[in-house]
Amino acid sequence: MSKTYAGRFFEDFRVGETLIHATPRTVTSGDATLYLALTGSRYAQFCCDDFARRNGLPAAPLDDLLTFHMVFGKSVPDVSWNAVANLGYAEGRFYGSVFVGETIYARSEVIGLRANSNGQTGTVWVRTRGYAGTRLVVDFVRWVMIRRRDVGGPAPETVVPKLSKALSVDELFVNPGMGGKADLDHLSGSRFSFEDYEVGERIDHVEGFTVDEAEHRMATRLYQNTAKVHFDAFAERHGRFGKCIVYGGHVISLARSLSFNGLAGCMHVVGINGGRHVGPTFAGDTIYAWSEVLDKQPLPRHRDVGALRLRLVATKDRPCHEFPDKDEEGRYPAEVVLDFDYWAIMPRAK
Amino acid sequence: MSKTYAGRFFEDFRVGETLIHATPRTVTSGDATLYLALTGSRYAQFCCDDFARRNGLPAAPLDDLLTFHMVFGKSVPDVSWNAVANLGYAEGRFYGSVFVGETIYARSEVIGLRANSNGQTGTVWVRTRGYAGTRLVVDFVRWVMIRRRDVGGPAPETVVPKLSKALSVDELFVNPGMGGKADLDHLSGSRFSFEDYEVGERIDHVEGFTVDEAEHRMATRLYQNTAKVHFDAFAERHGRFGKCIVYGGHVISLARSLSFNGLAGCMHVVGINGGRHVGPTFAGDTIYAWSEVLDKQPLPRHRDVGALRLRLVATKDRPCHEFPDKDEEGRYPAEVVLDFDYWAIMPRAK
Amino acid sequence: MSKTYAGRFFEDFRVGETLIHATPRTVTSGDATLYLALTGSRYAQFCCDDFARRNGLPAAPLDDLLTFHMVFGKSVPDVSWNAVANLGYAEGRFYGSVFVGETIYARSEVIGLRANSNGQTGTVWVRTRGYAGTRLVVDFVRWVMIRRRDVGGPAPETVVPKLSKALSVDELFVNPGMGGKADLDHLSGSRFSFEDYEVGERIDHVEGFTVDEAEHRMATRLYQNTAKVHFDAFAERHGRFGKCIVYGGHVISLARSLSFNGLAGCMHVVGINGGRHVGPTFAGDTIYAWSEVLDKQPLPRHRDVGALRLRLVATKDRPCHEFPDKDEEGRYPAEVVLDFDYWAIMPRAK
Repeated sequence: MSKTYAGRFFEDFRVGETLIHATPRTVTSGDATLYLALTGSRYAQFCCDDFARRNGLPAAPLDDLLTFHMVFGKSVPDVSWNAVANLGYAEGRFYGSVFVGETIYARSEVIGLRANSNGQTGTVWVRTRGYAGTRLVVDFVRWVMIRRRDVGGPAPETVVPKLSKALSVDELFVNPGMGGKADLDHLSGSRFSFEDYEVGERIDHVEGFTVDEAEHRMATRLYQNTAKVHFDAFAERHGRFGKCIVYGGHVISLARSLSFNGLAGCMHVVGINGGRHVGPTFAGDTIYAWSEVLDKQPLPRHRDVGALRLRLVATKDRPCHEFPDKDEEGRYPAEVVLDFDYWAIMPRAK
Repeated sequence: MSKTYAGRFFEDFRVGETLIHATPRTVTSGDATLYLALTGSRYAQFCCDDFARRNGLPAAPLDDLLTFHMVFGKSVPDVSWNAVANLGYAEGRFYGSVFVGETIYARSEVIGLRANSNGQTGTVWVRTRGYAGTRLVVDFVRWVMIRRRDVGGPAPETVVPKLSKALSVDELFVNPGMGGKADLDHLSGSRFSFEDYEVGERIDHVEGFTVDEAEHRMATRLYQNTAKVHFDAFAERHGRFGKCIVYGGHVISLARSLSFNGLAGCMHVVGINGGRHVGPTFAGDTIYAWSEVLDKQPLPRHRDVGALRLRLVATKDRPCHEFPDKDEEGRYPAEVVLDFDYWAIMPRAK
Repeated sequence: MSKTYAGRFFEDFRVGETLIHATPRTVTSGDATLYLALTGSRYAQFCCDDFARRNGLPAAPLDDLLTFHMVFGKSVPDVSWNAVANLGYAEGRFYGSVFVGETIYARSEVIGLRANSNGQTGTVWVRTRGYAGTRLVVDFVRWVMIRRRDVGGPAPETVVPKLSKALSVDELFVNPGMGGKADLDHLSGSRFSFEDYEVGERIDHVEGFTVDEAEHRMATRLYQNTAKVHFDAFAERHGRFGKCIVYGGHVISLARSLSFNGLAGCMHVVGINGGRHVGPTFAGDTIYAWSEVLDKQPLPRHRDVGALRLRLVATKDRPCHEFPDKDEEGRYPAEVVLDFDYWAIMPRAK
């Protein structure tokens, strides 16, 4: 029997089954440091114990997106090893921060299947849950297009899960400690509070980060994400793009780091409504980003903070002062690589 | 007197002398993180405290190869600074894991000398020992070809040490805690146990890792290995290959990480029988690997685990589904870069 | 109101005002590891708890230059975001080591202003202070040329601070624990002590480090230094050099690491008399370095150590065996990139 794992094909998934993902991982302060060095994050909550303690936390927690990437990465060998495409995210929720010394586990439940009419691929929906020990810390749905082992074989019953287009503010888990108590103006780098943002407002994040091959590979390996398209340049020479592509999650992290300039107070991501990797990013591309405020909601039980629903758009090799966006028919300019819809927590004015 | 260290030449070595290597180094969790991000390691034992504790250890230990590289690196300025070639390894043994907070020391004993007939170089054999504090954790023999200061000067008495071709299983130090108690199937990513492997079996590890310049340099600096051929591209433009070469140990680590796919349960390296860097690796090369089971032995005093003797062959820019190998005259295909013979520990079926 | 921060222009600075810099940062062992992997540092004091403890410290402290870069980095968004050029450093003093777990804060006082006659730029002098919690650990003066928002507007009163050309030895803060008690010869890698160095002596540090794009960017992000010229290759294609330039502080760190070969005992930087980034460094350049002993002074209250005033000159793509230097008119060879004047502590002979 071959010892080599060839990944799961479309036929291998059953609605209702649970996949227990390998390689639980104890989080170290080195993970936080490396994340910061690879993504340029400057949010005070995640790199300053004093700041986090003033917010009521025992120490600086892990950046929510770092937790997300670690959980996502664990799911790759079992879910998307044979994926042709990552099609979308939905219903991402964060239930509480992860701290250095905790161990991250992940498992995924198959919640949907639909064979494609070409007989070659199918769509698989999974809900992936990440735990710090036994404590649920994040879950999200993603769907991917996966190759069939036997082209044209019998198709399973179609099950398409019903997914929210966006989480409502009531579905968010907001915890004390997410901000608002620590000194806002000086130490966070933020000059604005919840009250200053308006629905419809657009913010150009101005700066750009050029992506290096070593950087995106180190980040993706930090998450133990094994998708071959990021690592094997020899095989990708004959692949779709002729070269390796950057893990889409790294682009999300770069865009979030860039959005510090304009959203420095907005530290915690608490919900992912949806996300689309509109185009591929390659080493050498320079990532820029802009944000749009889609919604803002008070949080009645948390007087120090409110929730902003933000749309984060990233481009490559195109600065964002003109806010490059999709047209009325939903077509994006060629430079847009990411359209990400999320809820974040923003401190209120004192 | 010149303050600059120019390295030891062949004439500077005396059989029986001990070289105390500089820069002892306290191991941090950042070392483990960076090793993982640079090599893609996914063995649960080294990144998951829970997993290691279920195996009876106090916390996740350092990857054995990371310890090896740190000890090797310390020996470079005193042993191989003026080396023309690294000729081989033998009798490598690991005596126990290293944990975060321990300090690694290294020293080498000169055990052999042989002047070459060209009068320009000689071979030096050293046995290098690595310690965590005062506790011996690894030793190995290596031999290198080193330049003479004075071409054609008098040659020392030839002493060629008698070295084992391979360690026998009785010579291995196997400790409780090396695996077998923690949940095998799900969390380690392994679907196979000791009983499933057969002598002569070959495993293609399928995946490939393209090596970036920044990655191999960061790894090699992490080990404080100062060999000039890895770092100084300006000088290497006029060197043997016209560019920097990758530290051979980084290739061993990449190949070991790739071998997770097929050998995920096989976490601890306990013996190095021999190793040959068959060809140079450069930035931009993609490393693939395959393994052959050379031997398997029960460990009478350890009912949870057995020992596998494995041969790990790495190639560059050539996938390994055809198991590229040396021919009957011992000549390797041009793409083979590593042939590494080691003993590892594999959990037994419950 | 625009949420995007566009940086402070010349008109925004007032003599006497204090800028409180954002993003305090708790130092982790991962920071020390990553600094070592990015710069090649091998000074035992900063990577070996045992060594530091023998010197009387509780654990290995952070490399003084790592502290300096973190403090400098925090000042960039408030001070030099719109800088045309970094003109100089002076009066840099280190008041005590920083340890893992401490949090670094930074603030700058504006101490000088001078409008340039072209009406387009002005020079701003700031004294930046770095703290571990509330404890002052480093301060330094730097001056930068900054763009005006309104070309030709009214000029502020000229204030040019009086700065020392060099700190005298009496102005240095030397603490017990800076070396001299730990075993000098073997474990530090040093074969020389304070007594062995002579004023006027020049030391070629021999080795070279080629700088990779990913490395200098990771280092600069580790310090949360946001200067755009290091990160945005798309914009820099139309910039002054057509490509990103390397943070000058990274060049200082590389040169200091190279100077281990000849100055291995010289671990602590205690004063920065001045520094000039003579030319830009780009990815792909190979950095070499040489040192000159400018002065040596005993430290009456510290019998284990003395102070060396050193000049550290770094070049790109030119080895330093000929000690490339400025000519009588102060013009540097094209390959010189750094001329750095500092005080360091060197153990005395026992």
